[in-house]
Amino acid sequence: MQDFKRYQRLLENTLARQDFDHEPQELYQPISYILALGGKRLRPALTLAGCDLFNGELEEALLPALGIEVFHNFSLVHDDIMDEAPVRRGKKTVHEKWNTNIAILAGDAMLVKAYQYVAKVDKAILPKVLKCFSSTALEICEGQQLDMSFERMESVAEDDYIEMIRLKTAVLLGAALKIGALVGRATEAKAHSLYHFGINAGLAFQVQDDLLDAFGDPSKFGKKVGGDILQDKKTLLRIYARELDPKGTEALTQSALSGDAKVQAWQKLFVESGARSKAIEKRDFFLGEAHDALKNAAGSNQAVAEQLKEFATWLAHRDR
Amino acid sequence: MQDFKRYQRLLENTLARQDFDHEPQELYQPISYILALGGKRLRPALTLAGCDLFNGELEEALLPALGIEVFHNFSLVHDDIMDEAPVRRGKKTVHEKWNTNIAILAGDAMLVKAYQYVAKVDKAILPKVLKCFSSTALEICEGQQLDMSFERMESVAEDDYIEMIRLKTAVLLGAALKIGALVGRATEAKAHSLYHFGINAGLAFQVQDDLLDAFGDPSKFGKKVGGDILQDKKTLLRIYARELDPKGTEALTQSALSGDAKVQAWQKLFVESGARSKAIEKRDFFLGEAHDALKNAAGSNQAVAEQLKEFATWLAHRDR
Repeated sequence: MQDFKRYQRLLENTLARQDFDHEPQELYQPISYILALGGKRLRPALTLAGCDLFNGELEEALLPALGIEVFHNFSLVHDDIMDEAPVRRGKKTVHEKWNTNIAILAGDAMLVKAYQYVAKVDKAILPKVLKCFSSTALEICEGQQLDMSFERMESVAEDDYIEMIRLKTAVLLGAALKIGALVGRATEAKAHSLYHFGINAGLAFQVQDDLLDAFGDPSKFGKKVGGDILQDKKTLLRIYARELDPKGTEALTQSALSGDAKVQAWQKLFVESGARSKAIEKRDFFLGEAHDALKNAAGSNQAVAEQLKEFATWLAHRDR
Repeated sequence: MQDFKRYQRLLENTLARQDFDHEPQELYQPISYILALGGKRLRPALTLAGCDLFNGELEEALLPALGIEVFHNFSLVHDDIMDEAPVRRGKKTVHEKWNTNIAILAGDAMLVKAYQYVAKVDKAILPKVLKCFSSTALEICEGQQLDMSFERMESVAEDDYIEMIRLKTAVLLGAALKIGALVGRATEAKAHSLYHFGINAGLAFQVQDDLLDAFGDPSKFGKKVGGDILQDKKTLLRIYARELDPKGTEALTQSALSGDAKVQAWQKLFVESGARSKAIEKRDFFLGEAHDALKNAAGSNQAVAEQLKEFATWLAHRDR
């Protein structure tokens, strides 16, 4: 994925040229901080790829791509407050390093900055780009709300779970690609197909996230394996286990197991009930849908299409 | 101010036509709730007035005006979390009625909704409208951060205070008017003068807020008189008292007075030091600046200009 590395490098250079050294520093320092923590810059890379797929000017897509990344980081800052997460990418979260008020306000400012960057497109495409960005941003809020609501529920239906991860995760991948395609002057139909590719790649990505959290290789996976199990999160694995082995799931839900014993017991149930296999099937179904959508989106640049195909496969099958 | 009542009515009708009855309800109910609490709808009325001043189509300004109101309410929801305010317009604040996470997320969604409404303008003016809205939104975040930082400071310089209230309060009045003017197809120069009118009217409004908080008529002023004094807020009155009678101010700052006795002692100091008179002078200086700026902004509709002049005078001299 040579091109993806190039996109990521372009984005890093663009970010490095931005000046967040403004007053009041209590507002802007947290923004610099979270943006400097790194991450894979997958979403802005997708914006550049979406543009490149139609042989658009990458230069025109750089600031919108940065807007997508700033938006993603805004959502991390606010989600981390809501989830009371102490650590992000191995460093203190913003609300831990400063405080909750500063994190709320820095997040708000980042959402506005994201709009400023995303709006830096030719005025001919500005209405379409904005419409896509705003509806996506709203959907992501809806997804976060659903995720929080699910925590208080006994069980979650598969469809509701898929809808939640579509909103919380997949739509931003779709929008990142679509905005890039619009900058590359793709037709509405092509841009829509590319969006659909992003949605399905995002769903595969999130199902793989659930799988890695339960079965990842601790030497590769960044977080502690079994985190979702210990928090009793309603992941797709848990939903399938309840469906395929209701009694076993109920027994484990009621059991007093904790720590590694709890993780191992659920891992065993996921494997033996067939939940793991079913999740893998679902993941690969989404990957197949993504690949199909990509065919319809095919732009002028076949090499980029190949890279995107490879990228979706990597998202779905990554080990970290 | 007959026209202002009409603007406010138009806005209420526009708001009533919006549908916030979406899923997930935990996200959208708090939005309906805060928007239904009412308030004076001053800012969206200014957007309609700005449009009307240039004989623009009011119909075209309704949704951008609603966007300004939704934005204002977003900032109230998040500010109330930060200020730990239990009550807003006589009702529970969103974070009190639901919880902090719901208030953070509802606020985020409102900021996005605000962009959706503000962007509902002709594409010819969209880039200008967005630029004005985003830079204003960012300034308001800066103002809120300065306000929070001032709370931890021993004393605040007059210029810093004026800059804080410009950012926190005045720029939104300016932007509301300017966006209306742009929708009314005012020239850039006229729209800028109207913005300047809004800034100065907003500064006069905020200084009057400080005066009312210390000296308002309890039977008219909605909040408890003396609230700022009891919270030791660095209002303009406090800043002037420190300047005009540093010893008296220092003595009161160190004193152990509380409750009504504390309020009365500070009221006396504000009057006797000349701080109150100086604040009144400053307020009327801003009002004069506003009136001057309005002359330069004068559009096609002289009746609306008169209403705006009267409105600024009311903002500066209101008793509630």
